[in-house]
Amino acid sequence: MSDFLELAAHRQSCRTFSGKQVEHDKLVKCIEAARLAPSGCNAQPWKFVVVEDPLVVPEVAKCTVQLGVNEYLAQAGAFIVVLEEHAKLMPKLAAMLDSQYFAKGDLGGAALSICLEAESLGLATCMAGLYDRPKLCQLLDLPPDQRFFLVIAVGYAVKDEVRPKIRKPLDEIVKFV
Amino acid sequence: MSDFLELAAHRQSCRTFSGKQVEHDKLVKCIEAARLAPSGCNAQPWKFVVVEDPLVVPEVAKCTVQLGVNEYLAQAGAFIVVLEEHAKLMPKLAAMLDSQYFAKGDLGGAALSICLEAESLGLATCMAGLYDRPKLCQLLDLPPDQRFFLVIAVGYAVKDEVRPKIRKPLDEIVKFV
Repeated sequence: MSDFLELAAHRQSCRTFSGKQVEHDKLVKCIEAARLAPSGCNAQPWKFVVVEDPLVVPEVAKCTVQLGVNEYLAQAGAFIVVLEEHAKLMPKLAAMLDSQYFAKGDLGGAALSICLEAESLGLATCMAGLYDRPKLCQLLDLPPDQRFFLVIAVGYAVKDEVRPKIRKPLDEIVKFV
Repeated sequence: MSDFLELAAHRQSCRTFSGKQVEHDKLVKCIEAARLAPSGCNAQPWKFVVVEDPLVVPEVAKCTVQLGVNEYLAQAGAFIVVLEEHAKLMPKLAAMLDSQYFAKGDLGGAALSICLEAESLGLATCMAGLYDRPKLCQLLDLPPDQRFFLVIAVGYAVKDEVRPKIRKPLDEIVKFV
């Protein structure tokens, strides 16, 4: 594959979900991409809840609309809730580091893998870092002490165009030695 | 692009770097992939030091060989040191959350983007989560209180074959609702 940069440039936070349902097989492929992601000591400190039931999707959407932001998530076709699990490190490292030392970074890679696989399947995504945790636990039958990482809205975009990406210029973020 | 899963399946932690130098242009493309990565509030809490000087590369390699692990990193052709920077959140969120609340996850996505772009360019990578921080600060002229995320070894692999990936089975990590 030679066009990873193109995929990365094309993927954006969707603001125009169409409300169309997402095919189950595509959601499975998104989880497969996360499953393959690397992790510290190969601990794989993650679990996923894929919400596709048309009766539950709007309920999860309500949980992600916090502080009046993210209102467009109400039209997502599905949600993937990314959960943080205990990371079992190699004994040598477990003696020195907190079990979750690498976990957030690992989860960040897994979550982005979901978004990139979705993009490659013609789906749009938006990562939501704010959500009603207790309500989600109740809705999805999760233990009240469950650790969350984030919630990913998945669906079809009404508008296909890529907005200009606002990023710091290269020379501001890199130095060559 | 339809083969993101293939790219994710092919990328692995390289154990057989050949010692060959890495082209500057390819390293720039790796940073470009990280630059495009998403982040909470688009804060982009990252900086990168690309180490390609053949005199400095072996010194950085020595910093990554900790506890007798990662000895194969001595043959990497270059290193990308991923640094954590202050994340400026939207005022609404900054009032509630620590500035670095999303940073580790964002950095995890940026670091994986580097590895995936490298893979798509025919390069091999290995992420090193343990390193001699003070020594790296000295070598790379970084302030002593610089926050690090991880160090990525980049190079050419002697062996091209993909080892079987050891991962939890899908049904152990996902539930569908």
